[in-house]
Amino acid sequence: MLKYPATAGLMKSQPNIRDDSDLPTSFRELIETYNELNATNIDEHWDEPSPLEFMRYVATNRPFVIRQGCANWAASCKWSAEYLVRTIGDSSVNVAITPFGESNADAVLEQEDGSTIFVKPLEETETFSDFLLYVQNQERSGTNGHIKYAQTQNDNLRNEYETLFADVPKDIPFARIALQQAPDAINFWLGNSQSVTSLHKDNYENIYAQIRGQKHFVLLPPLAAPCVNEQSLVGTTYVRAQQAAVGVSDELVAVVDEPVATVPVATWDPDDAESRTTSFSRLAQPMRVTLDEGDLLYLPAMWYHKVSQSCGDEGFCCAVNYWYDMDFSGSFWATNNFIRQAARQVNREGS
Amino acid sequence: MLKYPATAGLMKSQPNIRDDSDLPTSFRELIETYNELNATNIDEHWDEPSPLEFMRYVATNRPFVIRQGCANWAASCKWSAEYLVRTIGDSSVNVAITPFGESNADAVLEQEDGSTIFVKPLEETETFSDFLLYVQNQERSGTNGHIKYAQTQNDNLRNEYETLFADVPKDIPFARIALQQAPDAINFWLGNSQSVTSLHKDNYENIYAQIRGQKHFVLLPPLAAPCVNEQSLVGTTYVRAQQAAVGVSDELVAVVDEPVATVPVATWDPDDAESRTTSFSRLAQPMRVTLDEGDLLYLPAMWYHKVSQSCGDEGFCCAVNYWYDMDFSGSFWATNNFIRQAARQVNREGS
Repeated sequence: MLKYPATAGLMKSQPNIRDDSDLPTSFRELIETYNELNATNIDEHWDEPSPLEFMRYVATNRPFVIRQGCANWAASCKWSAEYLVRTIGDSSVNVAITPFGESNADAVLEQEDGSTIFVKPLEETETFSDFLLYVQNQERSGTNGHIKYAQTQNDNLRNEYETLFADVPKDIPFARIALQQAPDAINFWLGNSQSVTSLHKDNYENIYAQIRGQKHFVLLPPLAAPCVNEQSLVGTTYVRAQQAAVGVSDELVAVVDEPVATVPVATWDPDDAESRTTSFSRLAQPMRVTLDEGDLLYLPAMWYHKVSQSCGDEGFCCAVNYWYDMDFSGSFWATNNFIRQAARQVNREGS
Repeated sequence: MLKYPATAGLMKSQPNIRDDSDLPTSFRELIETYNELNATNIDEHWDEPSPLEFMRYVATNRPFVIRQGCANWAASCKWSAEYLVRTIGDSSVNVAITPFGESNADAVLEQEDGSTIFVKPLEETETFSDFLLYVQNQERSGTNGHIKYAQTQNDNLRNEYETLFADVPKDIPFARIALQQAPDAINFWLGNSQSVTSLHKDNYENIYAQIRGQKHFVLLPPLAAPCVNEQSLVGTTYVRAQQAAVGVSDELVAVVDEPVATVPVATWDPDDAESRTTSFSRLAQPMRVTLDEGDLLYLPAMWYHKVSQSCGDEGFCCAVNYWYDMDFSGSFWATNNFIRQAARQVNREGS
């Protein structure tokens, strides 16, 4: 990492300006300068930060992990399969369903004609007991049925999973104090190693707590926008085939949403780095971090993240995350939208 | 001010993307979005912030003023002309000298052929007593001699003006604690109402304390780069005419620096808003704030600022500022350089 020297005098803040540079060159310098000034390994702590220490990370929009940061939560102690079934087994829960081996929830799907669409999972409800058993059986047997994932991200831990809410803190004190707000949503996640969430970003400050199993994050800062090849894709949703046509089938097919609309999607996959690239993708330096049981991650607002997982002893992975509204004031929000939009222009012109 | 609504779901963070926008449109949206999400009046406080409160301002790169924030400093009580002369009257001090009514220190100068150069002041030393008397006499009589300004910004309060340093805090506690560092420079400023510092920016977090007279700031955020019409101008310095040619004269002439070099300079003046414009200048919403005696300003890193002043009872203005190194990590530094560079490209292409 390079620390720029500060020199006295009025004109000191104006280095490296070239009169003859073009937009692709400026984008390359943007990413290279960021890479020079920032580590690609994540900061690791073993103690909770003070609100001020946390605010310094928010200020630089940089992630960190607290190893064993949620290890003493009741959830970390209590959330066995047996406990979960005993507590909420009979409740109906929302489950996201996607085809095995083909695609993930909220993902880019390449069609036979080479075009790409954006596909959202089928959502169905079933009892939590049935859902958990399905997840565990698939993990243990390696069977090829659909993938099921509880991932609604609609504050479900204070609604659908409310009876489990007593087992986690009602907020994250260092974040509440620093950000001067209560969490906007607290989400419960449960699935197995087949569930992968593809690269995307959220406009929230995110505190992520790993309760069972491991989560594997691939992270990119917001200014990697030129690398991720954002495209406007037609939005579709999986439905069961018998809903789309006559006949009985367990097959899932992607059906175009009504009304037809496109959504902006990061189409580059850092784990398949030679496909769907832009001329900037090779400059990206993804940060990789694995959360073990009991670890806590601060994922800053607008960071691209791809998430996969490994199961714990009981054949499932479970996590909780706290979303705090990001601050839209200052220049961060406006600047990020500008970079995304300019990146799409330069990538379009380059293709 | 508009607060963007947060909605649940993975795709919520992707508003307002247009597939057909061009770079000038994206720049307009950048500035307009910032203007929508941020006030143009400055936050005013009457109490010192905590380090955490200060860090929130650093995080959003937004200025604030603490009214009477340095009113209880010894300097605010003691720094009369008589005290200053008694304390450092015989010391030699560095004085920046520029022609009356023509230009300011570190300023854009239009030449007779219409071209523009960047001109730095003549620097000479004289005793502080002589300097102060000159400043006061000019202010009181309105005479048209050269303008003199003590403005070296090289940590002069801990060097040239060291005997006055005991009258101010050795750092700003809320900034030291939040930023985890001592100030990089502490500067003493003294001049009269003729001294104007033209629009520029510094790569420092700046705490500015008004001791005598008033300072009038015109402020623009870093992302106003497309508005300020940055140009690479040839650097020159004023010299006394007899140094440049044979003969005796008090006249100051701008002589090109050796070796010849250009410096990037913001050439737009928010107080002369119809001259030297770019197509974006009209979108700028300058923030104006006057510091009265005893007021403290936080001027965030990289903000453009133009500074003029009014004198106190004794015919001079005096201020102290603390420069703390800005944080070059995170995305702020890299992003600002990108915006400046892309702004120069779009303005060049538009002209």
